[in-house]
Amino acid sequence: MANSNNGETLKAIYVDNAATTAVSENALSAMLPFFRENFGNPSAIHNAGLEAKKALEAARTAVAKAIGAFSSEIYFTCGGTESDNWALRGICASKSKKGRHIISTEIEHKAVLNTLAALQEQDFQVTLLKPDGCGVIAPEALKNAIRPDTILISIMLANNVVGTIQPIERLAEIAKERQIIFHTDAVQAVGHIPIDVRKLSVDLLSLSAHNFHGPKGVGALYSKVPLVPAGYMTGGGQERGHRSGTEHVPGIVGLGAAIKEAAENMPAHTKYLVALRDRLIGEIAKIPQSRLTGHPTDRLPGHASFVFEGIEHSVYLINSLNEKGIYASSGSACSAASTDAPHVLTAMGLDTRLAHNSLRITLSADNTQDEIDRICRQISSIIPELRNRKTRKRTKEIVSSVFDNY
Amino acid sequence: MANSNNGETLKAIYVDNAATTAVSENALSAMLPFFRENFGNPSAIHNAGLEAKKALEAARTAVAKAIGAFSSEIYFTCGGTESDNWALRGICASKSKKGRHIISTEIEHKAVLNTLAALQEQDFQVTLLKPDGCGVIAPEALKNAIRPDTILISIMLANNVVGTIQPIERLAEIAKERQIIFHTDAVQAVGHIPIDVRKLSVDLLSLSAHNFHGPKGVGALYSKVPLVPAGYMTGGGQERGHRSGTEHVPGIVGLGAAIKEAAENMPAHTKYLVALRDRLIGEIAKIPQSRLTGHPTDRLPGHASFVFEGIEHSVYLINSLNEKGIYASSGSACSAASTDAPHVLTAMGLDTRLAHNSLRITLSADNTQDEIDRICRQISSIIPELRNRKTRKRTKEIVSSVFDNY
Repeated sequence: MANSNNGETLKAIYVDNAATTAVSENALSAMLPFFRENFGNPSAIHNAGLEAKKALEAARTAVAKAIGAFSSEIYFTCGGTESDNWALRGICASKSKKGRHIISTEIEHKAVLNTLAALQEQDFQVTLLKPDGCGVIAPEALKNAIRPDTILISIMLANNVVGTIQPIERLAEIAKERQIIFHTDAVQAVGHIPIDVRKLSVDLLSLSAHNFHGPKGVGALYSKVPLVPAGYMTGGGQERGHRSGTEHVPGIVGLGAAIKEAAENMPAHTKYLVALRDRLIGEIAKIPQSRLTGHPTDRLPGHASFVFEGIEHSVYLINSLNEKGIYASSGSACSAASTDAPHVLTAMGLDTRLAHNSLRITLSADNTQDEIDRICRQISSIIPELRNRKTRKRTKEIVSSVFDNY
Repeated sequence: MANSNNGETLKAIYVDNAATTAVSENALSAMLPFFRENFGNPSAIHNAGLEAKKALEAARTAVAKAIGAFSSEIYFTCGGTESDNWALRGICASKSKKGRHIISTEIEHKAVLNTLAALQEQDFQVTLLKPDGCGVIAPEALKNAIRPDTILISIMLANNVVGTIQPIERLAEIAKERQIIFHTDAVQAVGHIPIDVRKLSVDLLSLSAHNFHGPKGVGALYSKVPLVPAGYMTGGGQERGHRSGTEHVPGIVGLGAAIKEAAENMPAHTKYLVALRDRLIGEIAKIPQSRLTGHPTDRLPGHASFVFEGIEHSVYLINSLNEKGIYASSGSACSAASTDAPHVLTAMGLDTRLAHNSLRITLSADNTQDEIDRICRQISSIIPELRNRKTRKRTKEIVSSVFDNY
C-alpha cells in the first residue's frame, strides 16, 4: 500500500488490525498447495480426499492446542459471525425446554447483539448487562441477572471497540456454579492474549482467522464435549454431522498455521505491541480534550482507542488520516461506514455526541515506532484543524441563519 | 498427484470434479493480491477498505453477468450449503404467515433435504416429488402437488449423483403461474451449462465456486429483487444488511474470476467434455450387467454415472480404482464415505442392492482421451475381479456355515 502525499510517496500505515489483518507469509505458504495440488474434497475416500482430510485434522489439532482444547471440541466455520450465530441459535434451539432467558452485555459485537435480537423475535428473553466506565462487566451484575430460566450467558472476551479484556474466568465461574452454558466471543482475543478454555472454564468460544493474520472466510467454534449446539447449517453432515458444507480446506490450513504462529510469537509480540501502544496512548493524552476509552491496562496489547471533544464526527478524522496514508477506524469494522462504536461507548457512560467522535488504532507487529510517531504527529495536527473547521462551519451556519431570517 | 503402481509411476487421474475441482490458474492469480497486499476489510472507509470493496463489487458484477442477473440480486455466502440453508430457511421464515407447505424432490442434495427435515421439525410440511427412471421431475407431478398453502418450491437444476438436468424453465413456469417462490440448487450446473435466471424465471438460485474451478469456502445466492429471504446469518450487516460476516474477499474475487472463465470456455469445453463423456459411456456399456444411470442426453457435459451388478458395494470399486491412481466416487461427495448415492438411485426406481453399486466419473477439461481409455481399461478389469471376489466370499461363507452346523 502506498500513498501519495504532497509529491512525496510514503508507505501507507495500516493500523486497523482489529478490523482485519494481512495473512502472514507462513499462513499463505501453508495454504497455497491446497488450491491446485491437494485440492481434494475431504469427504472423498480416494487419496486426493484423504490428503485434504489429513490437512484438515492437522489444522484442527493446531487450533485445539492453541486454546487448550481437545481436537474433538473444535468445529470449523466460515468465520466469527457464523460461530456466534451457531452458538447462540444452536444452544437456544437445544435448551429451549429448560428455559428461554439469555444474559449478555450491551457492548457485544453485532454478531451477538443482532442474533440476540433475532432470538427475541422467537420469544427468547434477553438481559443485557451494562459495563462500568472502562468497559468491564462486574461479576456481581451477572450474578444478579441470573434467573431460574436462564439457559445461556454470552460475554465477549475482549471488546472490539475499546479493547477491554473481561474477567471471563470469574464470569464463567458464576455460570458454572449455576450450571448455565457460557459462551464467549473471543474473535478479538484469540491470537493476541493467552487463552486456555479449561482455565477459563467456558463452554463455547468463537474465533476468526482473519483477526490474527489468518485468512478471511474461516473461523471455528470451540464447544466442550459433549455439548454441541443444535445444527445450524444442515446438509452433507461434515464436521462430525454438526456443520455441513464442503470444508474450506485452504482457509482451514491457513487458520491452523496462523494460530500456531500467533501462539509462538505471543510473548515477544505482546511486549513489543504494549510498548508501541503505550507510546501512542501517552502522546495522544497530550492533545487537549482527548480521552482514552476502555481499560487503561486490561486491554488488548495492540489496541488503543480514544474520543476527542469538538471534532463533530469521527468520519472526518478517519478520512483526514486516510488522506495522509493512515488507515485507522472509529470502532467496529463491520459497520465502520455506519460508525458502530457509539453503542459500546454510550453503554460505558459517554454521551452520544462524544461517542460519535471515536478513533481506534489497532496495531500489528508489522507496525514500527516511526509509524507510531508519524501517526501521533498527524493526529495532533488534524484534531485542531477539525475543531477549527467545525467552528467555522458553525459560524457559517449562524451567519446563514441570520441571513435567512433577514 | 502421482501414484505408484507396479514400480511404474503414473500421474493420478482426478475424475471426481462433481465433488470439487482444482482452482484454475486464472482464479488463483486473481485471488493472490488479496491475501497480503489488498487485504483490507470492505466495511472500512479508508483506502485499504475501499480497494477490497471495489474488488468485491467487480466480482458481484461478474457473477451477475454469468447468470443473467442484476448485481443487486447477488449475495455472497460461504458456499452452496449456506445458500440452500438461507434460501429455504429464510423464505420459510418470511412467508410462514401465507402457508407452511414446501414442494421439493427426493433427489435433492442433502443441503436441501436435511434443511427441509429441519423445517419439518418447525411444523412446515414437505412434499417430495419422485423422478422418472432417468431422474427427471415431470412438470405434471409438480402441478398436482401444489396446494393453496404452498409457499416454496425447491428443485435442483442438475443432479450431483446422476447428472440429469431438470426442465427448470417449465417447472418454474408452473410456480410463477401460481405465484409460488421457486428456488433451484444450481451448484452442479453453474459454470457447466448456460444459465439465464430471467429465461429460467427462478426466484432464487444457489451456486458454489469450488464446483467450477473457483475456490472452496465461497458461493452465492441469487435472489430476485425485491425478494430477499429473512436474515439467516445476523451481525454486522454486510451484503446490504442481509448476510453478515466479514466478506471472504480473496474467495469472492476467485469466484468472480472462475465464473467468468467458465462462461468463456463453456462452448469449447462442452464439446470436448461431451465427446470424452460419451466415449467413456460407450466403453462402459460393453461391460456385461453395467448400466448408465441418469438421463442419456439431458445430463451435465462431463458427468457419467453407472451401476454394476454383482460387485457387492461401490466402496470396493472406488478403492480399487484409487489403488490404480484413479480418483472417482460413488455419488455425492459430501457423503462419499457413507455412500450417499442410494437415496437418488432408489428414488429413480433402482433396487437398494444395485443402488449401492454405483460409480460416478465426473470430468474436467484437464482430463484427456488417454486418461479416459486408461479408466475404461481399469474398470473393465476391476469389475470381473470384484464379481469373482464376491463369489469366492459367498462360497467361503457357505462352506463355513456348513462346518459350523456340523
